[in-house]
Amino acid sequence: MPGNCGCNTCAGASPCELNRDVCQLKELVRSQGKQLGQLVRHMKMGCKKPPKESTLKGLSPCLKCLQPDVLYHLGMDTATMDFPKVFGDVRFVCMGGTAERMERFAYKIMKELSLKLNPATTLRNMAEPGHRYALYKVGPVLCVSHGMGCPSISILLHELIKMLHHAKCQDPVFIRIGTCGGIGIEPGTVVISSEALDGMLNPYYELIVQGKVVLYSSKLDQCLANELLSLAIPCEDDFCTISGKTICTNDFYEGQTRLDGAFCDYTNQSKTAYLQSVQCQGVVNFDMESTAFAALTNRANIRSAIVSMCIVNRMEGDQILSPPECLSEWEKRPQALVARYIRKEFLKRDDDSDTEAYEEVCPSACLEGDKAI
Amino acid sequence: MPGNCGCNTCAGASPCELNRDVCQLKELVRSQGKQLGQLVRHMKMGCKKPPKESTLKGLSPCLKCLQPDVLYHLGMDTATMDFPKVFGDVRFVCMGGTAERMERFAYKIMKELSLKLNPATTLRNMAEPGHRYALYKVGPVLCVSHGMGCPSISILLHELIKMLHHAKCQDPVFIRIGTCGGIGIEPGTVVISSEALDGMLNPYYELIVQGKVVLYSSKLDQCLANELLSLAIPCEDDFCTISGKTICTNDFYEGQTRLDGAFCDYTNQSKTAYLQSVQCQGVVNFDMESTAFAALTNRANIRSAIVSMCIVNRMEGDQILSPPECLSEWEKRPQALVARYIRKEFLKRDDDSDTEAYEEVCPSACLEGDKAI
Repeated sequence: MPGNCGCNTCAGASPCELNRDVCQLKELVRSQGKQLGQLVRHMKMGCKKPPKESTLKGLSPCLKCLQPDVLYHLGMDTATMDFPKVFGDVRFVCMGGTAERMERFAYKIMKELSLKLNPATTLRNMAEPGHRYALYKVGPVLCVSHGMGCPSISILLHELIKMLHHAKCQDPVFIRIGTCGGIGIEPGTVVISSEALDGMLNPYYELIVQGKVVLYSSKLDQCLANELLSLAIPCEDDFCTISGKTICTNDFYEGQTRLDGAFCDYTNQSKTAYLQSVQCQGVVNFDMESTAFAALTNRANIRSAIVSMCIVNRMEGDQILSPPECLSEWEKRPQALVARYIRKEFLKRDDDSDTEAYEEVCPSACLEGDKAI
Repeated sequence: MPGNCGCNTCAGASPCELNRDVCQLKELVRSQGKQLGQLVRHMKMGCKKPPKESTLKGLSPCLKCLQPDVLYHLGMDTATMDFPKVFGDVRFVCMGGTAERMERFAYKIMKELSLKLNPATTLRNMAEPGHRYALYKVGPVLCVSHGMGCPSISILLHELIKMLHHAKCQDPVFIRIGTCGGIGIEPGTVVISSEALDGMLNPYYELIVQGKVVLYSSKLDQCLANELLSLAIPCEDDFCTISGKTICTNDFYEGQTRLDGAFCDYTNQSKTAYLQSVQCQGVVNFDMESTAFAALTNRANIRSAIVSMCIVNRMEGDQILSPPECLSEWEKRPQALVARYIRKEFLKRDDDSDTEAYEEVCPSACLEGDKAI
């Protein structure tokens, strides 16, 4: 007898039985789809030859002789760690001043990329044995603290660049997510640096090598800066995002013409005049790492950008008087922008199945220890 | 009947009874002595007027207008902390690169000065709210981490100098207990810097202030350096202590002419020639903080010295290959020398009763929380 719809297929089946069949079939389709996805990925991986070299350029010819290479301040070496296996998938390196901020960013990016940790584990500071920096790995993203000042970030950059070179990484992007003193801009504003200038307003990072001064260009990648700027959503974001030049100083107090340091041999008038003069030249903020960051990434053929959060408007004062709760709320602003960029790039380069691969395998979280769990 | 000795005093008393009397009397003498010491101290303290000002000189005239003064990177301010009460007794400020090393030194100096913590407490990183440095206080000694490079230590020095100024400290001595790369000296050697030079071998710390280069002398206190050197005991110490000039660089790799950085645009030959030439000029080691440390302490009228432990002989290589156990054993060497100096000064300035006062009151450990215990 034909069913209610008039066909013979569902003859005699109750709606309840049909519903059960539909559920079982859906489950089967989902399971087969997953298997198909895994097989396609495996085939892709099988066909893809692993890269022989990283895309980094201009590196020291001596690197190939370093067996092992000890990255002293990161507390790692190529003898006891398989760099291609552990870091070969890194595509984004995000850095900021403090360990706590970068740990928070690591968890934020994990959520943004829908990555999951094994419930029995937590993110680990992989640079802990070096006692200098904090380094967290979340899938293709490294989140690293760099301390304060060009010397501190330059040590980190040398060792990270060597790490990515040994790991044979492809086209990594470096982004500094910092704090800065604004010049004529409101605290809480997000600044994307268009250029990094030294204290004499030159776009250079100065090094003294074997008793001679050497200058390296500290220009930043304009395309990347514009791309990041385009991700600001003025009508939705509860903050302003602007772009402008950044002065990098070697001193937080006198170097940034503050009146509140232990020493101060100038007047309030000369301070104001100096701030106004640099503002007229397109400078919007001060930081303490941008020239070294720009120059070292430039030299290695790495695209890089600086996204900072303004903690004080230097036209109005020197001391950072915003309450900690306010500062930690503002801290999320540059992180949100950078997370949008990473998410977009992450989804763009690979198809969805790749995202799923991270979801399942979660290589960032599943280091040696986890695999045994 | 007279006793065995022939006198009438101990007539009839057994040796056992006499012994008991002696013990009781000794205990009474000790207890009365303690009370006397306490009374003398109280009388002394009552006569001594607390200092109106610190002994620091050359500080910013703006400091008196900072109400409150926020020491942003130390996470403290003069509104919520009573600086004279908490830090007024500080006489020695010891600094080194990492938080862990300075925490270990804090516990070492506690033992050396026979200070004790309330058993229910532990030392606290007082700069934790700032997320940048670690600061421990042990009686009259501050043990602080400074990160890496002149910019990082300069921020710390500005804020420590302001702290001691607000606390009205008297004649503090600053000592950097660091690590360094040696030039022609064995790893494990302790180096007391006679002078701090910049990368051009000039005894200056360069700052750019309002777009102009300003140079500050980076000469170190020769008397203090000699005093520390005199505390080495060649026949007893299992390490060598030497004195010589230190080059302070803004970069660990190229700035110190290493071949193992990410970049290297010079040869092994030019490296060796450079190291030999600076060695001929009396240079024995490289560090990354000495010029800023010397210049900023000089400017504030603070006696200061640098005692470092050599982690590699740069004439023989660039990579730090000594095992961590070895490095942490060597770390104790400059600490031992500095602890001898502090102990000597601590016992010299005050009489023994003062040491006992610290033993009993332990002001370093008894912060707000402890007092309630």
